[in-house]
Amino acid sequence: MDFPTHTSAKLDETTKNLLNPDLLTNSEASAMESLDYDYIDSPLVLSEKKRLFQSSTYLMLLNVKLWVVTFLIGFITAMFGVFIDFVTNTIIKYKIILADMAYIHTQGAYWFPYIVLLSSNIILVGISSALVLWFAPAGGGSGIPEVKCYLNGIKVPEILRLRTLFVKSVGVILTVSGGLACGNEGPMIHIGSMVAAGISQGKSSTVPLVNTPVFTEFRNDHDKRDFVSGGAAAGIAGAFGAPIGGTLFSLEEGSSFWNQALTWRTFFCAVVAGFTLNTFLSGVRTHNWSPDDTSPSFQITDTSPTYSIPHVPFFILIGALGGILGSIFNQLNKLLMQFRKRINRMKIFRWLEALIIAGITATISFSVCYLAPGCVSIGNSTSTDDITFRDVGWYCGPGEKNQMAALFLGSGELSVKSLFNDNTFMSHTLLIYAVLYYLLSLITLGIAAPSGLLVPCLAVGGAYGRLIGQWLQPIMSDVNVHTFALVGAASFLGGTARMTISLCVILIETTGSVQRGLPIMVTLMVAKWVGDYFIHGIYDIHIELKKIPLLEWDPDHEMSDVRAEEIMADHVIWLYDVEKVLKIHTILQKTTHNGYPIISKDEVFQGLILRSQLVTLLYKRAFQNSKAPEEIPLVDLSEFSKYYPRSPGIESVQIYREDEDKFIDLRPYMNRTPYVIHNNATVERVFRLFRTMGLRHLPVINEKARIVGMITRRDLYNFQAKRNKNKLDRARKRRKSPNIEDVQYIEGQHSLNGISESTKLLSD
Amino acid sequence: MDFPTHTSAKLDETTKNLLNPDLLTNSEASAMESLDYDYIDSPLVLSEKKRLFQSSTYLMLLNVKLWVVTFLIGFITAMFGVFIDFVTNTIIKYKIILADMAYIHTQGAYWFPYIVLLSSNIILVGISSALVLWFAPAGGGSGIPEVKCYLNGIKVPEILRLRTLFVKSVGVILTVSGGLACGNEGPMIHIGSMVAAGISQGKSSTVPLVNTPVFTEFRNDHDKRDFVSGGAAAGIAGAFGAPIGGTLFSLEEGSSFWNQALTWRTFFCAVVAGFTLNTFLSGVRTHNWSPDDTSPSFQITDTSPTYSIPHVPFFILIGALGGILGSIFNQLNKLLMQFRKRINRMKIFRWLEALIIAGITATISFSVCYLAPGCVSIGNSTSTDDITFRDVGWYCGPGEKNQMAALFLGSGELSVKSLFNDNTFMSHTLLIYAVLYYLLSLITLGIAAPSGLLVPCLAVGGAYGRLIGQWLQPIMSDVNVHTFALVGAASFLGGTARMTISLCVILIETTGSVQRGLPIMVTLMVAKWVGDYFIHGIYDIHIELKKIPLLEWDPDHEMSDVRAEEIMADHVIWLYDVEKVLKIHTILQKTTHNGYPIISKDEVFQGLILRSQLVTLLYKRAFQNSKAPEEIPLVDLSEFSKYYPRSPGIESVQIYREDEDKFIDLRPYMNRTPYVIHNNATVERVFRLFRTMGLRHLPVINEKARIVGMITRRDLYNFQAKRNKNKLDRARKRRKSPNIEDVQYIEGQHSLNGISESTKLLSD
Repeated sequence: MDFPTHTSAKLDETTKNLLNPDLLTNSEASAMESLDYDYIDSPLVLSEKKRLFQSSTYLMLLNVKLWVVTFLIGFITAMFGVFIDFVTNTIIKYKIILADMAYIHTQGAYWFPYIVLLSSNIILVGISSALVLWFAPAGGGSGIPEVKCYLNGIKVPEILRLRTLFVKSVGVILTVSGGLACGNEGPMIHIGSMVAAGISQGKSSTVPLVNTPVFTEFRNDHDKRDFVSGGAAAGIAGAFGAPIGGTLFSLEEGSSFWNQALTWRTFFCAVVAGFTLNTFLSGVRTHNWSPDDTSPSFQITDTSPTYSIPHVPFFILIGALGGILGSIFNQLNKLLMQFRKRINRMKIFRWLEALIIAGITATISFSVCYLAPGCVSIGNSTSTDDITFRDVGWYCGPGEKNQMAALFLGSGELSVKSLFNDNTFMSHTLLIYAVLYYLLSLITLGIAAPSGLLVPCLAVGGAYGRLIGQWLQPIMSDVNVHTFALVGAASFLGGTARMTISLCVILIETTGSVQRGLPIMVTLMVAKWVGDYFIHGIYDIHIELKKIPLLEWDPDHEMSDVRAEEIMADHVIWLYDVEKVLKIHTILQKTTHNGYPIISKDEVFQGLILRSQLVTLLYKRAFQNSKAPEEIPLVDLSEFSKYYPRSPGIESVQIYREDEDKFIDLRPYMNRTPYVIHNNATVERVFRLFRTMGLRHLPVINEKARIVGMITRRDLYNFQAKRNKNKLDRARKRRKSPNIEDVQYIEGQHSLNGISESTKLLSD
Repeated sequence: MDFPTHTSAKLDETTKNLLNPDLLTNSEASAMESLDYDYIDSPLVLSEKKRLFQSSTYLMLLNVKLWVVTFLIGFITAMFGVFIDFVTNTIIKYKIILADMAYIHTQGAYWFPYIVLLSSNIILVGISSALVLWFAPAGGGSGIPEVKCYLNGIKVPEILRLRTLFVKSVGVILTVSGGLACGNEGPMIHIGSMVAAGISQGKSSTVPLVNTPVFTEFRNDHDKRDFVSGGAAAGIAGAFGAPIGGTLFSLEEGSSFWNQALTWRTFFCAVVAGFTLNTFLSGVRTHNWSPDDTSPSFQITDTSPTYSIPHVPFFILIGALGGILGSIFNQLNKLLMQFRKRINRMKIFRWLEALIIAGITATISFSVCYLAPGCVSIGNSTSTDDITFRDVGWYCGPGEKNQMAALFLGSGELSVKSLFNDNTFMSHTLLIYAVLYYLLSLITLGIAAPSGLLVPCLAVGGAYGRLIGQWLQPIMSDVNVHTFALVGAASFLGGTARMTISLCVILIETTGSVQRGLPIMVTLMVAKWVGDYFIHGIYDIHIELKKIPLLEWDPDHEMSDVRAEEIMADHVIWLYDVEKVLKIHTILQKTTHNGYPIISKDEVFQGLILRSQLVTLLYKRAFQNSKAPEEIPLVDLSEFSKYYPRSPGIESVQIYREDEDKFIDLRPYMNRTPYVIHNNATVERVFRLFRTMGLRHLPVINEKARIVGMITRRDLYNFQAKRNKNKLDRARKRRKSPNIEDVQYIEGQHSLNGISESTKLLSD
């Protein structure tokens, strides 16, 4: 099945010219496919729906399944949270007992406890990083950028695999207990999403044995994405115990295409997770099994007046400071990531990097505890740090405690809790901690191991917020340092991550401090405003670095001045509604598109068919000898979702020579009424339709109902990318593609010359 | 300009046959127009946008205005809240001082204090009701149903007027201080919406003098609706001090068409309102001007363990009870409303009804305080009820207080606070209060005066929740009656109103009790599930009774089996892109549609134009003698929004005989690229597009790009209404409209015979 060389070359050239080095390339784009969130309204699907929906038993059963799956997602995600929390704290505890013994053994020397901590941290982080690098690369980092993208409508490869779930949950335990400047909250969001995907699909690509046919109804992009929304919310509920914040996170990230019923389900999922977490954590910790015993993660117990009007300007200033510090953090991390990308070509380098960072973190942490212990009387500290260096003094006098060690060597969660709650902190302790932890978080973010940014941000912000509060105390009356610590934490997290409402609610829920809601909100808003002036949020930066075509929430002003036809791909490759087998096969081999418009004999747009559907039709040999329609569709609906989420590639399909001239009637399978847009519509309108409906392909139609182009996520993303680079004029030039001579242009209809010729050659 | 009688009659008949007595009638529908949320992408608008957006000063100024308006909405709404709170409490205080004096004067007799209370209550309610009935009928009730409808995309007449704002805010003070079983929270949401509409428009239809040209950019349905979302949120923030809950309320009700930037603005608006309220309330109450001094409205100060696992089944049972009691409440209120509608034809009857209900409420309240005082030691009561019958004993012994009087005769807010916080309640007090207040709320809801349902629901639910808690105390250890009171309140409010996430957050914010978040959520979910099994939420019931075509959030299963062409209005009245003046005038006179499709000479769909645009074009005499396009559009863009939100009626336009044969070129003014749908698309798809994009008119196009029908809110609403009545098959029959012979059917193009004939007659 060789093509004549010249047409093949021509075709390649055509394809090449569609690309622009600045922009997404085809191969990148095909690795990051969009979700098929829109329903396929094909006659086959609709008649099946009609049949099923007539049975009220079916509808009831579907509903029951929906809620059972949602419940399970919440429950199991929270169990992951309980497990991770328990094991992490246990490892840290024994690690510190070891170090305590070394300290006692050497009677307060530096080197022995240091060696113990250094080696144990390097081992823990080394295993975690190795797991990620050689077993499941998608398990690295926090996973929030990937979940954001998924909710935004993009399939990022591998992120929802069982294998990734395993690595992420084991890895995050090792990384956090390995003393790195990171937390488990981000990974928990990812874990929740993976649990949701796994349970709702009832099967695993990693372990083929796991395959229950109970939930086959949910094996499609639409339902899977909806469950993942719930899972992400459950992840936050299972990490922070913040179900409302979790629901809002999913809503904030996924609200471009959303519906009200989904809010309700997501909320239920998060409530189940929150309830399970509280109950089991209290059981594990206090053997009391009472959900109320577990106070919110970072509960602020202080009950004095929280703030007064004269403090508000300082909150605003702290918000601005958070915006600036966050922007610097983001910019530095961006440069670091770019540097990493250039030098870390081999996995072993990435692994060594993780080890080195673990070593640096351990060395700096320990040295600071030794050199600037910040000894305070034990009575002034909260009881939350009882697993840290309390009993042995650690370079402090009797009855004193090394507060620096409590901050640096315990878990990040405990540091935040102590920053929010402890009565005394020396200023220099806070200053040193804030600066060093800022730098450590900076280098940790982006290593090849599961690691979350939320807790480090709270710790850094909490430290400088509290410091500012302490500085203000002599000047102003009634300064509440706990409030200032919380405000600082909000400002820095807001300045880096830029989540707004969800973050605000998460902080309120986790601190149990509704009274401080208004200061948090004000600070967050200022931090976001200031930060947005300089640079994007950290998650968006990582998404950009990974070249994932995330679409923004809203259209820009410039979009009202550009038309659909100026950004669309105008080399449309279409099929007839009854099409020759060979032509379909050739087109699938020669192009990488995922959707093909279908036209009738008189060239009127008829509908849209997906690549995966076409491959299935070829694979199942749904061939007929004449063009006349068959009474019954030749392929059953279930065949199309059989291999979901993967679909067989075209290379797996073999066409026999005697089949080449046969036909496939595409009409029963295609989406006959996709949303379409007029070629003259503004890009703003295109954007709204595309985003709000969660589309993957948007056919562009002219006045006479002829298809003249296709718009995909890539076109909109490239438009936004170019605008960001002030290259708007280039977007316009694209329409006059230099290879227009390759394309036969007849009255609003495009045909790809190469393909139709080669098809003719072969079929002749 | 008389039409020959026969065509006119025919036309009327045609129109009549589109209607169905069960369904919305034309006149009802035209009183409840949809918002034009979608942008008009006409050449005129786009070129103006292009011109404006090139100026970065303009964009910056626009942005500044946007945030200034948002700030002002939050601030002023909260000031309304402060004012209402302060005046209401002052009136109640003096009323009770009067009654106290009467009590002391008669040395504990029944009749004198009763007469004082009765007469003052009747006077207060009488004024309030008279204001509503004779000055601004849209000011009655809570206003939540109307705000819901507005956010849903429906213009309900009069609800955003300055006059309504005045009546609502004065009226709610009088009603609440008049002792009725109602609160001011619902009206505050309405007040916030009105403030938002007023400020963003910068003019008033009630007082023409109020007309500032600063914010003319926002004089369109899109921006106005977005500001109202913020205002509603600010209303909740300004009533409860719950900014996050307020934002979620707007999001929950308006999220079918929403964007992320709007979340951010709504949140800002609510935060400003919350901050303002707390600051000024603390200033007014304690002269301290510290936002933290004002604890959340219903703060629960109890700090003992809030709940444990064995209580959870009881929370679920209370949730179910709330669902059942709420459903009964809704059903009874529905019957009452229907009864009211039948008998209360004259305003005076409605006024007398309000007076009678005020009398009944005063009589029952006072009699109960006299007959079953529920005397408790003052020490066991919270200090929040210091304006009630504390000093004089009121039928109780010395050192005791009449708790029934505190519940019944103070404001609803104080009752809720005391139910959530007081240490002692006699069981019979709670039982009597719950039953009587349930009945009083039931008859109060729907009277002709501003009155909110939220607080009475909390009070009733709080009473029975607490009662159940007290009953359980001997059986179970560690029962926290405060938690049970809160759970009961959540259950009953959830069972009547059926708001979920927003209500949950509102309760958490107002009680300051994050620990009780999970019980509240569980209870609310159960209450909603149980309630939804029986009957709609109370707001939806009132919306149905008012025949407002509220569309549901999500499509139903049945919609996937019906096609657009089966529900569309197929008597399409179209215009040519260059159309005769007389024809336009005639069509506007003879039809009530608000949007008209435009076709070209070769009958291809070209775009959509609104009635208001056509009237303006006629009014401004944008006439030309030939069909050739003019260089410059004849009417300026600003003319079209000049009279917003009203537009001049067609009856105000006079066409001279010499103009009748002239033409209007509609192309510069029409929306050239509206969203369209294929006639074969499922109603599910139609519904999604219509709802998500906030459409008003959806042209239905066939394969050949010919217009074959129009779908409006009414069609979708009627489809849902019919489905609810199991009359699905009737929906299908509609397509074969009996009057099809009136319509000339040529290849996918409809022309209204009557009109084209009559036009011909006249123009000849």
